[in-house]
Amino acid sequence: MRFKVTVAYNGAHYYGWQTQHRGDSIEEAIEAVLTGMHAKEIEIVASGRTDAKVHALGQVFHFDSDLDITSEAMKVALNSQLPKDIRIQKVECVSDEFHARFDAISKRYDYYVTCDVDNPFIEDFMMRSAKELDLLAMQKSAAIFLGKHDFTSFTSAKIDDRKNRIREITRFEILKEERQYHFILEGDGFLRYMVRMIVQTIIEVGKHKETFEEVKAMLEGKDKHLCKYKACAQGLYLVEVKYKEE
Amino acid sequence: MRFKVTVAYNGAHYYGWQTQHRGDSIEEAIEAVLTGMHAKEIEIVASGRTDAKVHALGQVFHFDSDLDITSEAMKVALNSQLPKDIRIQKVECVSDEFHARFDAISKRYDYYVTCDVDNPFIEDFMMRSAKELDLLAMQKSAAIFLGKHDFTSFTSAKIDDRKNRIREITRFEILKEERQYHFILEGDGFLRYMVRMIVQTIIEVGKHKETFEEVKAMLEGKDKHLCKYKACAQGLYLVEVKYKEE
Repeated sequence: MRFKVTVAYNGAHYYGWQTQHRGDSIEEAIEAVLTGMHAKEIEIVASGRTDAKVHALGQVFHFDSDLDITSEAMKVALNSQLPKDIRIQKVECVSDEFHARFDAISKRYDYYVTCDVDNPFIEDFMMRSAKELDLLAMQKSAAIFLGKHDFTSFTSAKIDDRKNRIREITRFEILKEERQYHFILEGDGFLRYMVRMIVQTIIEVGKHKETFEEVKAMLEGKDKHLCKYKACAQGLYLVEVKYKEE
Repeated sequence: MRFKVTVAYNGAHYYGWQTQHRGDSIEEAIEAVLTGMHAKEIEIVASGRTDAKVHALGQVFHFDSDLDITSEAMKVALNSQLPKDIRIQKVECVSDEFHARFDAISKRYDYYVTCDVDNPFIEDFMMRSAKELDLLAMQKSAAIFLGKHDFTSFTSAKIDDRKNRIREITRFEILKEERQYHFILEGDGFLRYMVRMIVQTIIEVGKHKETFEEVKAMLEGKDKHLCKYKACAQGLYLVEVKYKEE
């Protein structure tokens, strides 16, 4: 039986979804519980990785189980054993063909920046900005990224040059909610650091440190050394992974 | 010059307001910054202590300074050097007679219990309850505590028997806000663990494990071994300290 699982996590105390150091990644915490339940090693396959400190509301993974257990019972069993900062939201029985990574057709990431800098509770959850940002300028520049582009300028400089760096961004909204700026990005996939690099570039526009034209040139330059910005991990949330069959 | 300071803190990573272990209490973190600024040891006096993991929105302390600095500059200087989970909200110049502990006439504590148990972000901030609680029963029993009482049954068993244990509770509201229960307690002072012991007792009423009559008997018994309940520290917030002059 293949299970598709939607999981939310507070990434504050983890080195990311996947890591070399045993015991401190979200993937390993979940695999440890599943391995205990099955009395044999269980591997899970996620829609993709998230970096250290990044959060998720709707990360998706799949795994195969030979236990005679309903999806609801699987959810209860997992949540009873997982750390409280990793919470299973949904478990579904799916076809053996389902693949959490290859079948994903789009992902949504949200990012939060707050001007409420005297709030002691947001350290792990949002970026702080002492100054207000120019919302309209940010919204205009965000539009540059919509559509299909080669995002070489907006990913890790360590990326393999043979890797395809064309992605399609289908949604890029920036909302002002009380003292927060809320960024919403949706697309068919994102390269490593891509969301954080785009968000920080847009924030620089909001601070009037970069212009619409400079950002446009950055994207069109397709050079992995062009963008030197990267927003902190704490403000980033993997909100949803969408699949064909839905 | 005496300064009155209002400070908010996320208590998650501290052993409380005051502790023996250097460097891990909120008081010590603030004193370390002030001592650095003044190039001599500065001691601060708070309205009272908070326990390990307990949060504050409006803890108040005072200290004396010989620096030629405005209250606004003092706020900026403190916040620039304090950890991000301790944030100064307000600094005021006050009379040399002002005393943060002796002049406090009332305190407000809030407590949060959530039924949103699949939320991975609330671990440090609220108590979890998988089941709904009986709001009306809790509200009725909360009224038992209003007014002036001897709260011997609702404090640490280690309390000094010679200590006055009469306190007046002037407000005890319980609100249901979406999936949260929000407790608000205000009074002229609270004994050690008093808020957490009262809140957990009321929660037991909400679970139908204790009755109105049993809670009444517990309070009237004035015996420090009568109440065995204590809500976890994570859900507790010192919201406000009120002073005469205000």
